[in-house]
Amino acid sequence: MAAPQPTRDDKFTFGLWTTGWEARDQFGLATRPALKLEDHLRKLADLGAWGYTFHDNDLFPFDATDAEREEMINRLKKATEETGLVTEMVTTDTFAHPIFKDGAFTSNDRSVRRYGLRKVLKNVDLAAELGAKTFVMWGGREGSEYDSSKDLYAALQRYAEGIDTVAGYIKSKGYDLRIGLEPKPNEPRGNIFLPTIGHALAFIDQLDNGDVVGINPETGHEQMATLNYNHGLAQALWSNKLFHIDLNGQHGPMYDQDLVFGHGDLIQAFFTVDLLENGFPSRPGAFDGARHFDYKPSRTEHEKGQYDAAAANMEMYLMLKERAVTFRQDPEVQEALAYSGVDELAEPTIGEGETLEDLLADKKAYEEFDADKAGERNYGFVRLHQLAMRHLMGFGA
Amino acid sequence: MAAPQPTRDDKFTFGLWTTGWEARDQFGLATRPALKLEDHLRKLADLGAWGYTFHDNDLFPFDATDAEREEMINRLKKATEETGLVTEMVTTDTFAHPIFKDGAFTSNDRSVRRYGLRKVLKNVDLAAELGAKTFVMWGGREGSEYDSSKDLYAALQRYAEGIDTVAGYIKSKGYDLRIGLEPKPNEPRGNIFLPTIGHALAFIDQLDNGDVVGINPETGHEQMATLNYNHGLAQALWSNKLFHIDLNGQHGPMYDQDLVFGHGDLIQAFFTVDLLENGFPSRPGAFDGARHFDYKPSRTEHEKGQYDAAAANMEMYLMLKERAVTFRQDPEVQEALAYSGVDELAEPTIGEGETLEDLLADKKAYEEFDADKAGERNYGFVRLHQLAMRHLMGFGA
Amino acid sequence: MAAPQPTRDDKFTFGLWTTGWEARDQFGLATRPALKLEDHLRKLADLGAWGYTFHDNDLFPFDATDAEREEMINRLKKATEETGLVTEMVTTDTFAHPIFKDGAFTSNDRSVRRYGLRKVLKNVDLAAELGAKTFVMWGGREGSEYDSSKDLYAALQRYAEGIDTVAGYIKSKGYDLRIGLEPKPNEPRGNIFLPTIGHALAFIDQLDNGDVVGINPETGHEQMATLNYNHGLAQALWSNKLFHIDLNGQHGPMYDQDLVFGHGDLIQAFFTVDLLENGFPSRPGAFDGARHFDYKPSRTEHEKGQYDAAAANMEMYLMLKERAVTFRQDPEVQEALAYSGVDELAEPTIGEGETLEDLLADKKAYEEFDADKAGERNYGFVRLHQLAMRHLMGFGA
Amino acid sequence: MAAPQPTRDDKFTFGLWTTGWEARDQFGLATRPALKLEDHLRKLADLGAWGYTFHDNDLFPFDATDAEREEMINRLKKATEETGLVTEMVTTDTFAHPIFKDGAFTSNDRSVRRYGLRKVLKNVDLAAELGAKTFVMWGGREGSEYDSSKDLYAALQRYAEGIDTVAGYIKSKGYDLRIGLEPKPNEPRGNIFLPTIGHALAFIDQLDNGDVVGINPETGHEQMATLNYNHGLAQALWSNKLFHIDLNGQHGPMYDQDLVFGHGDLIQAFFTVDLLENGFPSRPGAFDGARHFDYKPSRTEHEKGQYDAAAANMEMYLMLKERAVTFRQDPEVQEALAYSGVDELAEPTIGEGETLEDLLADKKAYEEFDADKAGERNYGFVRLHQLAMRHLMGFGA
Repeated sequence: MAAPQPTRDDKFTFGLWTTGWEARDQFGLATRPALKLEDHLRKLADLGAWGYTFHDNDLFPFDATDAEREEMINRLKKATEETGLVTEMVTTDTFAHPIFKDGAFTSNDRSVRRYGLRKVLKNVDLAAELGAKTFVMWGGREGSEYDSSKDLYAALQRYAEGIDTVAGYIKSKGYDLRIGLEPKPNEPRGNIFLPTIGHALAFIDQLDNGDVVGINPETGHEQMATLNYNHGLAQALWSNKLFHIDLNGQHGPMYDQDLVFGHGDLIQAFFTVDLLENGFPSRPGAFDGARHFDYKPSRTEHEKGQYDAAAANMEMYLMLKERAVTFRQDPEVQEALAYSGVDELAEPTIGEGETLEDLLADKKAYEEFDADKAGERNYGFVRLHQLAMRHLMGFGA
Repeated sequence: MAAPQPTRDDKFTFGLWTTGWEARDQFGLATRPALKLEDHLRKLADLGAWGYTFHDNDLFPFDATDAEREEMINRLKKATEETGLVTEMVTTDTFAHPIFKDGAFTSNDRSVRRYGLRKVLKNVDLAAELGAKTFVMWGGREGSEYDSSKDLYAALQRYAEGIDTVAGYIKSKGYDLRIGLEPKPNEPRGNIFLPTIGHALAFIDQLDNGDVVGINPETGHEQMATLNYNHGLAQALWSNKLFHIDLNGQHGPMYDQDLVFGHGDLIQAFFTVDLLENGFPSRPGAFDGARHFDYKPSRTEHEKGQYDAAAANMEMYLMLKERAVTFRQDPEVQEALAYSGVDELAEPTIGEGETLEDLLADKKAYEEFDADKAGERNYGFVRLHQLAMRHLMGFGA
Repeated sequence: MAAPQPTRDDKFTFGLWTTGWEARDQFGLATRPALKLEDHLRKLADLGAWGYTFHDNDLFPFDATDAEREEMINRLKKATEETGLVTEMVTTDTFAHPIFKDGAFTSNDRSVRRYGLRKVLKNVDLAAELGAKTFVMWGGREGSEYDSSKDLYAALQRYAEGIDTVAGYIKSKGYDLRIGLEPKPNEPRGNIFLPTIGHALAFIDQLDNGDVVGINPETGHEQMATLNYNHGLAQALWSNKLFHIDLNGQHGPMYDQDLVFGHGDLIQAFFTVDLLENGFPSRPGAFDGARHFDYKPSRTEHEKGQYDAAAANMEMYLMLKERAVTFRQDPEVQEALAYSGVDELAEPTIGEGETLEDLLADKKAYEEFDADKAGERNYGFVRLHQLAMRHLMGFGA
Repeated sequence: MAAPQPTRDDKFTFGLWTTGWEARDQFGLATRPALKLEDHLRKLADLGAWGYTFHDNDLFPFDATDAEREEMINRLKKATEETGLVTEMVTTDTFAHPIFKDGAFTSNDRSVRRYGLRKVLKNVDLAAELGAKTFVMWGGREGSEYDSSKDLYAALQRYAEGIDTVAGYIKSKGYDLRIGLEPKPNEPRGNIFLPTIGHALAFIDQLDNGDVVGINPETGHEQMATLNYNHGLAQALWSNKLFHIDLNGQHGPMYDQDLVFGHGDLIQAFFTVDLLENGFPSRPGAFDGARHFDYKPSRTEHEKGQYDAAAANMEMYLMLKERAVTFRQDPEVQEALAYSGVDELAEPTIGEGETLEDLLADKKAYEEFDADKAGERNYGFVRLHQLAMRHLMGFGA
């Protein structure tokens, strides 16, 4: 059985910083040269990608003159036209330059905060100009190593001020653009603000312009905090705030690995694809955003290896999709889901038309309910999971 | 220098399930007999506690008759009167009995959900009767081991339905009672819903009756997810949702240790007390709720050892408080805080009266700003932290 | 494609405490009744198991009289005969009773240490009597929560004294029995002595009777310490000390989950089976010990569910085996392994007959070696891994 | 109470790569310029350091000519003479250059292995020339991200071949030098070989020239694997293999933080110093090696901040030493240690002159032993730990 091949309809997108990573890490020098922009985009298009994404400084250096910046933007536009790739998302680098070493929007230095805000706003214009629909903000340096070094209340105030300013700017300009906040628990800071999907969602609820702000959760970032990515996606969808996704692989709490999607926790990846493609049992339907990969080709890979890694993400996704679709269609699985009561959870606990008083008066619900008997139910979760494993491994059909 | 002694003004409270834990664990039998209610409370009072808290089934068994239940409630009231202890918080056990093995509010079995709701509502009445001001809800069994076993959207719907029902009941009854949701990432379920402070805050924002719902974060639960407890407390305070706290100790991601407060990450505990006692630099002032300990005396401790462990929590808190107060008062620390720009973070990024247009037109903020120079600032965070360490270790004065 | 079915030739074995777990956990009561010994064994045999294993107190209670003990042993022997199951391994419970709350061989209380030693020695006789070839020792309570509470040097001395005594006894009796030490990092103690495969191997090297002592590593225990189980197995095999294995599933550092094998980190499980079935590229050949499962049916499962979980372990193993065998046989994989230099690693760095002086004099090795060029090699590890993923998911053939 | 000040008798040493770190990390550029060698050493001497340590490429670049190399060595010698600093340890960089991207001694590429071996041997000569007594080997790139990419047996063979070659060379040259292997679980590789103290000790036991090979454990590396550093130190000391130490700070499993010693887990740091200064209760006496710090000044620190961070390590150590000494001297602590049976653990379980037969015949040890009663002992570990906390926080005297 041949592995499936990607097409543009699959809406796969890649960050220029991913396949283009030169493989400089905390303990070593770059092992690969920078990719030439045009070659890079052409190759992604050839592999089957639908679009690309980038940080401003993936395209031009931090200290580029206006002319240098324009030249690169023009080269990008031309390459985009030639390849037919979509500019799917744009983001801003507020973490690499020393000025941001204590953060951009939450730096203790006000002049840095003002500079950071300006850098981001400038990039919002670029995103709109290029037709991107999503503007991701990862505040990788917003955080601390020492609890003494921050006024944590003020930090949240400043963070909210910053995001509200950007969101307000987008609205005032009438841009068709939404912000996706990207949570991460740590690295490069000891503790990053908005460490998980939950914290980011709660933060957005406090904003004045939160209507255009959602989240961009990354598989590995949640797993670095021992959390289940799919549970997080579900809460984001439940809150109508899943604006974008970053798919990759990770082995639990350690440094940020950015492995190929599915090369970390494969079972969780299976259920991620199941959720994105099949939706929830009670709310079927696919996620309609791009399938965006935020991974890094391992430092051991060179040239051909870089692109093999890019292709591996798409192949993993498509293999998982094929398995997830047959999983949900299998009559034995459907029977097992019913046995386990998975559908029953969509039924309200308090019946239609039932009042609280009715519930309180319902002796069958409590006084006369045989709790010990109810405690003996076999939920059959292991059997159901095993059916999923069969499908995942190709023993399902 | 003698360690400080607790008084009732310190507002220390203990769960009956903490000091009273019989030390039955996943791999072993109970090592201690059940404490007699009256002895237990008297001893806590003698040690300097201000109040106590409990689950319904700490007081009477799951299958108690109404008469048995009443008898225990009367004994509790009498002991409370005699000791002068305050009934500070009441909570419900929705996790021990087999009926709750797949959750209470989110069980796939609707009859279980109805039973769970009734059990909780009955306990709300008891909480009000006893004058508790906080009603904690820890949904320890709300979760899953397998992503196949839950409709995650429906689970959040049901969870919200359940909490909203309880909150609505409290409001309809006019009880002076607020709900505190307690997040936890895992154990006893593989993944628990509302795994962190952030997820719980975001969840509350979706409720109809969220005004009387806040959170009860536990030190160790956040640390099990590699997160910084104080960052979480800060976001809860920023959202006006810190309704209650559970203090204890933990060594990062592993099983839930419930060590004595401060016996886990001591530095983080220092800054927890600093936050609770001193507030934020830009918003000074103490947290006015109870200092509630949710710890377990180690399984090796017996009788005297159980109470020694209870006392250790209060002593840790008071020693940390003494250190935190002198830390903030030390002029050298104040100078170092200013040097590090900690106060500067409270200053809005966009000046009073400044418009977005003004900021965009401010060439000094961006076009003429010397970013490289700004990147050379010494923030002095290590020196500041070292001053905290001196104070923490008694070398500060 | 139907999932493969187990036979006795697969040498699958189960602990009586696994499928028989009553599902009492840290936060909840038992959800299942005890299984009747004869039913339990018959069912395991019917499912395709080859043998069983047990702790003394899985068979008879801690305080059983000699007569009660004998009765249960006789029932076991009879059931063994009837089912044809092999008594594959025997172990001793030195963790459940309160006497062991500070350990058995390393308790601070010498009388407890003597008692623990006697309990173990008595069980060694039983193991020999039943024809077991492996005697596992998991020192689950050997450890501490507080560094003050142990003389760590003395603890290792006492641990070694205890193991050496048991090993010496086995040798003196001429039993055909080998000890398998089982490492675990934590839970139920805050820190357990011999926390990983490495620590246990190093410990054995210090023993007087270490020749009959090896290890029994458990998948989840290593993963609780963020470690790769297969790397550990490899070091154990390299040291000729892999005497037994405990297969199960786990999601990284959190409480000990004891999931079904393969239901945790599926990719790592694939390579575990690859290693056990195919051996190392440079040393092909299967591991010849039993495939022993140390898992727990989830607390939500009842009766049928318990055995479904048992069966799931074997099915996972066999599906993975089928995938691992075709993976190694695939010519494209073999080409990719060669491309990646996997075989080249078996070639000694210093050539046959080459002296150190020769190496030092070899200018081509250093002075004239083009390091930058060598740094450009594409190792192709991601492509190779992706081929493994195809096979794992059934897209390989 | 003033914080204590370091003197050369304290034997504090620093890696040149620590205070000299330019603060380039995975997500950001350098924030600090390279330090001038002479200034750097003079400043360390002024702060109270006793010696320094370095990688070859901390001193001269990877591609330095022989002349450039010599020049830097001469400058180093001169600066050493002027400052009186001791060259305490030398190590080799086998991780930064792209050639080592798949390891040095275990690279799949044999030519790389030969190159790596030559680079290390050359540096052994330098270490001997400078009078260093320890030669640390951290195989940071020896490992893998994918289990398919390595023949794990061959990897251990090659690793052993490499270390044995270096150790053999040292012996053949008659150098007064011992190797210290440095374990680490992950980062920069997904899984590093010899991930913990235990694995390294076990590995050494398999070497031909293991007599001159011991370990150099780093605080944070063990804690990244959820392990207790002091338990690891104890096992290394018990095996006579603690040849060197790397002290720093870390917050559990996440990226390698290299915080100042004591700025991570303070309580564990207290007991590290207690162990190094006071020894084990049954084997009192100080560790006589250097107190070596392998930390990084946070990326937010500049110039003055870099050295403040260096000084903080020594101050932390000395404050902890002062507290640890009074802790052990306190009569109340000594009483509590006895109460907890800490001393009793040094007493052999089998009495002097007692045979195994005697033990088996001792009815008081087992048949007549009241296990339930013994299970009721109060070990008093929490009280003992609380006494340690009082001392640690300056409330002990």
